[in-house]
Amino acid sequence: MTTTFDKAVQLAPAGDHRYTGATEPAYTNMVGPFGGTTAATLLNAVLLHPLRQGDPISLTVNFAGPVAEGAFEIEAHPVRTNRSTQHWSLQLLQQGQVAVTATAVLAQRRRTWSAAEATMPDQGLPRASDLQPLSLPGAPAWVGQYEMRFADGEAPTVFDGREQPHAHSRMWIRDAQPRALDFLSLAALCDSFFPRIFIRRRAPTPIGTVSLTCFFHADAAQLAQHGERHVLGSARALAYRNGYFDQSAEIWGDDGQLLASSHQMVYFRE
Amino acid sequence: MTTTFDKAVQLAPAGDHRYTGATEPAYTNMVGPFGGTTAATLLNAVLLHPLRQGDPISLTVNFAGPVAEGAFEIEAHPVRTNRSTQHWSLQLLQQGQVAVTATAVLAQRRRTWSAAEATMPDQGLPRASDLQPLSLPGAPAWVGQYEMRFADGEAPTVFDGREQPHAHSRMWIRDAQPRALDFLSLAALCDSFFPRIFIRRRAPTPIGTVSLTCFFHADAAQLAQHGERHVLGSARALAYRNGYFDQSAEIWGDDGQLLASSHQMVYFRE
Repeated sequence: MTTTFDKAVQLAPAGDHRYTGATEPAYTNMVGPFGGTTAATLLNAVLLHPLRQGDPISLTVNFAGPVAEGAFEIEAHPVRTNRSTQHWSLQLLQQGQVAVTATAVLAQRRRTWSAAEATMPDQGLPRASDLQPLSLPGAPAWVGQYEMRFADGEAPTVFDGREQPHAHSRMWIRDAQPRALDFLSLAALCDSFFPRIFIRRRAPTPIGTVSLTCFFHADAAQLAQHGERHVLGSARALAYRNGYFDQSAEIWGDDGQLLASSHQMVYFRE
Repeated sequence: MTTTFDKAVQLAPAGDHRYTGATEPAYTNMVGPFGGTTAATLLNAVLLHPLRQGDPISLTVNFAGPVAEGAFEIEAHPVRTNRSTQHWSLQLLQQGQVAVTATAVLAQRRRTWSAAEATMPDQGLPRASDLQPLSLPGAPAWVGQYEMRFADGEAPTVFDGREQPHAHSRMWIRDAQPRALDFLSLAALCDSFFPRIFIRRRAPTPIGTVSLTCFFHADAAQLAQHGERHVLGSARALAYRNGYFDQSAEIWGDDGQLLASSHQMVYFRE
């Protein structure tokens, strides 16, 4: 079955290293499309490319300018292919102007010694089925494409300006339209955490991510095992200062395995 | 005074969007130069560029292939300049082959509401002057370019294979040759944390960073205030799995302000 997410990240080949796509209205954000689907669409250009070797290890997406509703073009260049890794440079263009730049690293992973260091932040965490799905009337369209069940640090339904001591959140999340987890949906999930400044300040601050990095800890086999179940997302910030804050997130499988981590710098006004 | 670090990151203009430089033997790593000086040198191409607008907010450096000792060329393109941000794409080439790719975001910051969320990890932390500088005979040359004073999670002087429960480290660090902190040395410091797998496994594992992201929380004025004093670096990992692990680091001023945070994915063998 083709889901709305599949449609949002869909690309058509358009010659050497080029793909065309279009923004999907169901993933509209406050200004332009949800950054998560933009990140996933750029990654899709790599995954569809005939020269692709391996699976994603890291992806950095720089939101250089607004993405307008409608058609776009993606250029994806494999700048270096080694024995086990492959490095990509990407751009998303509209009317010949660069709106997004990205780099990606793929790798052919082999079985090695492995170990967790962080543990799943599941202290006192209710099961997904014991939590209510978020209902956020008036939220941008993309929010409705996810089923988010918050344990802590829920997005405020009303911006009452009561500053909070921190912006830590934990939520169970999956696509609202059930879909097996893959690298594309994992990339999009990396950007599915509300801007920390909303949670912290509870004030309507204009914001925009300038740079988003996703690290893929899971390989394809692990993702296939996960299927359509919820993942646990946790997010926090380190500092807000003079127009920019960072936020880091982790995405955990319900078996306690870390699937991805992500880090972004976000612009804010005032 | 020109320090060894200044020499390592030095570039000469070589035509439109091009600079030439050379690796500095004092910063040699196990294979090729220290990634921190490579990152700083790429950032320097942006800072020296006549079209530069603003100060660094984020920098992502992808180590696509080995950098050989000797000369290199850097191409730095401002792909998009907005009112307050500027996006850059960079490559480091040797013999016409891409060895490193990078993207950078600059911004003109304005004074806004600001707040810390994380706090300096200074619990039970001795002052720098109460700790011994690291002495690591046989370490690669770059290690000697820093004065590192470890409070916890020191690099093992002997790899005894005794696996540790975690790889958290805290160290006071500054350039061995005193030099006022700036964006270049801050970028290099982001990569000055020993690979977490060395601390965790205490085994000689071949490793290589594939992608490094630095977020700059400090602005130029804050850096100028810092001067030559030590910064506090803390580092940890989330997970090691099938050939790759992540590590995240924070760099704090001794006044408790977060100056930078960094995140990398590292390849390891076995």
